[in-house]
Amino acid sequence: MSLMAEKLSPLDRLGPQRISILGATGSIGSSALDLVAHHGGTFSIEALSANSNVQLLAHQAIKFKAKLAVVADEGAYGDLCEALSGSGIEAAAGQSGLIEAAERPVDCVIAAIVGVSGLNPTLAAIKKGQRVGLANKECLVCAGDLFMKEVERSGATLLPVDSEHSAIFQLFDFDHPERVEKIILTASGGPFLKTPLDVMQNASPEMALKHPNWQMGRKISIDSATMMNKGLELIEAFHLFPVAVDQLDVLIHPGSVIHSLVQYCDGSVLAHLGTPDMCIPIAYALTWPDRIECPVKPLDLAQIGTLSFEEMCEERFPALTLCRQALQTGGCAPTILNAANEIAVEEFLCHNIGFGDIARVIDLVMEQAARENMLNNASDLQEIATVDAYGRQKALSVIKKLQAQGEFAGYSTE
Amino acid sequence: MSLMAEKLSPLDRLGPQRISILGATGSIGSSALDLVAHHGGTFSIEALSANSNVQLLAHQAIKFKAKLAVVADEGAYGDLCEALSGSGIEAAAGQSGLIEAAERPVDCVIAAIVGVSGLNPTLAAIKKGQRVGLANKECLVCAGDLFMKEVERSGATLLPVDSEHSAIFQLFDFDHPERVEKIILTASGGPFLKTPLDVMQNASPEMALKHPNWQMGRKISIDSATMMNKGLELIEAFHLFPVAVDQLDVLIHPGSVIHSLVQYCDGSVLAHLGTPDMCIPIAYALTWPDRIECPVKPLDLAQIGTLSFEEMCEERFPALTLCRQALQTGGCAPTILNAANEIAVEEFLCHNIGFGDIARVIDLVMEQAARENMLNNASDLQEIATVDAYGRQKALSVIKKLQAQGEFAGYSTE
Repeated sequence: MSLMAEKLSPLDRLGPQRISILGATGSIGSSALDLVAHHGGTFSIEALSANSNVQLLAHQAIKFKAKLAVVADEGAYGDLCEALSGSGIEAAAGQSGLIEAAERPVDCVIAAIVGVSGLNPTLAAIKKGQRVGLANKECLVCAGDLFMKEVERSGATLLPVDSEHSAIFQLFDFDHPERVEKIILTASGGPFLKTPLDVMQNASPEMALKHPNWQMGRKISIDSATMMNKGLELIEAFHLFPVAVDQLDVLIHPGSVIHSLVQYCDGSVLAHLGTPDMCIPIAYALTWPDRIECPVKPLDLAQIGTLSFEEMCEERFPALTLCRQALQTGGCAPTILNAANEIAVEEFLCHNIGFGDIARVIDLVMEQAARENMLNNASDLQEIATVDAYGRQKALSVIKKLQAQGEFAGYSTE
Repeated sequence: MSLMAEKLSPLDRLGPQRISILGATGSIGSSALDLVAHHGGTFSIEALSANSNVQLLAHQAIKFKAKLAVVADEGAYGDLCEALSGSGIEAAAGQSGLIEAAERPVDCVIAAIVGVSGLNPTLAAIKKGQRVGLANKECLVCAGDLFMKEVERSGATLLPVDSEHSAIFQLFDFDHPERVEKIILTASGGPFLKTPLDVMQNASPEMALKHPNWQMGRKISIDSATMMNKGLELIEAFHLFPVAVDQLDVLIHPGSVIHSLVQYCDGSVLAHLGTPDMCIPIAYALTWPDRIECPVKPLDLAQIGTLSFEEMCEERFPALTLCRQALQTGGCAPTILNAANEIAVEEFLCHNIGFGDIARVIDLVMEQAARENMLNNASDLQEIATVDAYGRQKALSVIKKLQAQGEFAGYSTE
C-alpha cells in the first residue's frame, strides 16, 4: 500500500522538517503556517505559493524565511518581486513556478490550492514521490484514478488533510484492509435536515447558505445543504482507502464531534473525535506516523454532554445517491458530476434555478454524458480538463433547455 | 514494549490456532468456546480447566476435542476421569494440573480464572513466554509489578480481555507512547449516579445490586455501585499501558457504547465503540494484530440515537480516589486495597456494614497498612498472598472495632 510507503516520521530525523505550501494564503495554508509558527524550530519553509494575494504571500515568505515564493497569476510577478526585494527570497510566477514549488524536495508538500487549478502542481509533487498533505478536493474527485496510479508508481505518500479522511486514515488498518467492513463518514446534516421536503425543494440561496454550525464559503455551504459535499468526500474516501463503494456509509451526526468511524469485522467500531480545528489534520499530515502538539482546545465530552446520530435519508439528499452512482460507473463520471454541480450551484446562487433543481441538473447531465460516451477513463490531466469543460457546458445547456420549457421550480424567500 | 513483541497474528500461519482456556466453564471461558465453535476449523483446543464443574468441563473437552482437561478441585479428579473415560482426553487436577494446562505451548492461553486463584497458573503461562489473553482482574490489581516484570523478562504477549482495556489497546500508539496525553476509561455510573448522597451512603444491598444496564455477579455489582470496579480497571490500565497515574481519567458514559478513549497531544481523541459483548475482546486477544468476524449484533448508532457523558464526581465515588492513591503509593498498596474491598463488600452484602462504610473501611485499612509498613513491593506470589491475607484480616478487625464502637451507619430498605 503506497499510502504507507514511508514508515518514519519526519520528526524522527535531526533538524527542522522542511515543508512547502501550495495555496499558502488560503484557510488551510494560513493554518499550516500558524502551526509552523507555534512550533518554532521544528519546521522550516521551502516554498510558498498563492493565487494572486501578493502582499500576504510576501509577508508570509519573509516572516517564515521561505526560499521561494510563487504567485500563480503571472501578471502579479512584478508586484511579488517588488514586495520581496532585498529579502533574498526567490520569486516565481505562473504554472512553471507552481511546478517548481511542488517539485523541490521537501519533507512534506501541503497541497492546498482550491479547485481544479490545484491538479497540476499537486500531481507534480506526487510524480516526484514527495509526501503530500492533500487538502485539494478536486484531485481525487475529478482525477482519482490518475492520481492514485501516480502515487503507486512514484511511491509518494499521500496524507489526507481534512477532518473526515484524516480520521479514517488514523483508524484504518492498512495491514488488514480486508477486516474493514465499513467506513462511516459523519455529516452534520446541514440547514435542511428537518425542513419539510417541499419547502427544501424550493429553498432560496439565503436559506441554503445558513449552515447550522459553520460560516463557510458560498459554494461549500450549498454543497453542505445538498449533501454533495459529503458525496464528494465519499468519492475521495473511495480513492484513499482500499474499500468497495458499498462499504462507504454516511451517518448524520449534527455535533460533528466524531469526525468519522471505521467498522471492523469483529464488531469493533473505531472513531476519531476532536474539537473541529483544521490544525489537527494538518499537523497529522506533517508528522505521521508521529504526532505533534496542536494549539487546540482539548475535547471535553462531559461538557459537550451528548452526541446524537440519525440515519442518512438519501431521498432528502439525492446528491449523495448521484455520487454513489458516479463511483459505481467509474471512469470520468465523478469528473462530470463535479463539473455539473459547480455550474448548478452557481446558477442556484444567481437565483436561476431552484434548490431541488441542483441534483436534477446533475442527473440529466450524467445521463447525457453516458449516452454520449463521455464516461471513459482519462489518461492525463488534459483529458480531465476536456471532460470537465464538457460537463460544465452540458450543465449550462441542460439548464437553458429546461428554463426555456419553463420546467424549473420557483423558490421561496424566507 | 513487550506487549507488542509478537507482530504476526496466529491467523497468519497455516493450520488451526491452538488455544488453552483456564477457567473454561465461566462466563469468559464459555464465550471463548462459543467463538471457537462459530469458527469451525480456525481454532483447536489444547487444554481446558475448571474449578469444580466437572460435568460441564468434560462436556466441553469432549465437544472441542481437547487434549487435556484439568479440574482445580483435587477431590473432583475421580469424577473427571470417569466423565472423560473412553474419550482419550487426558485428565489432571489441582495446582500441578493447572500449571500443566498453562505451560503447554499454544498460540494463546485465555486466562479466565476468577479471583486470586488465577494468579499462579496465569503467571506460569507468562513465564513460558506464551501469548496470554488476560481476563483475570487480580493478576494486575494485586501483583501488577510482578506480572509486568515477568512479561518483560519472558517476552510473553499480554492482551487484555475486557472491553475497556481491549479498547485502549486498539487505540494506543505503542510506537509513540509519549504522544498519549490521557487514557479515558468510560464508566456507566452504576445505580447511584443520581441518588442523593445521604441516601446513597445508607443504601441497602438490594438497592446497590440493581445495576441499570447489566445483570452481573453480586461482588462486581457492588463494585460498580461504589465505582471500585472502575478504580481496579484504572490500576490494570496503569500496568498495561506506559502512562503515569495522572494520565488516567474516568468519564461517566451511561450507555456504555464507547468502551474507552485515548487522547493524543495533537487533540485527536480515538475511541472504541461496539455492542457490549465479551466476544469482541476475546476474539481480539486471540487474533491480534489481525481480527476475526464475531457473531455480534453490529453497532447501529442511528438506532441508538444519542450518547451521553458527564464528569466523574469523586466525592460521590471515594473508591476511585482510594484506587488512585494506592497507585500513587505503589508497592503492595493495591493488593491490600483489593483485599480490604473484598471483605468490605462481603460484609455489606451480609448487612453488617452500610454502603458508605465500604470505602471508609478500605481507607482505614490502607492507613493502618502504611503505619505498619506493609506497602512494600512483593517479590513473588507467596509474598502477595501474605499481604492479601493481611489486608483481609485488617479489614475484618477494622469492621469489628467500628461495630463495637457503634460507628457504622444503618442502611435504608427500599
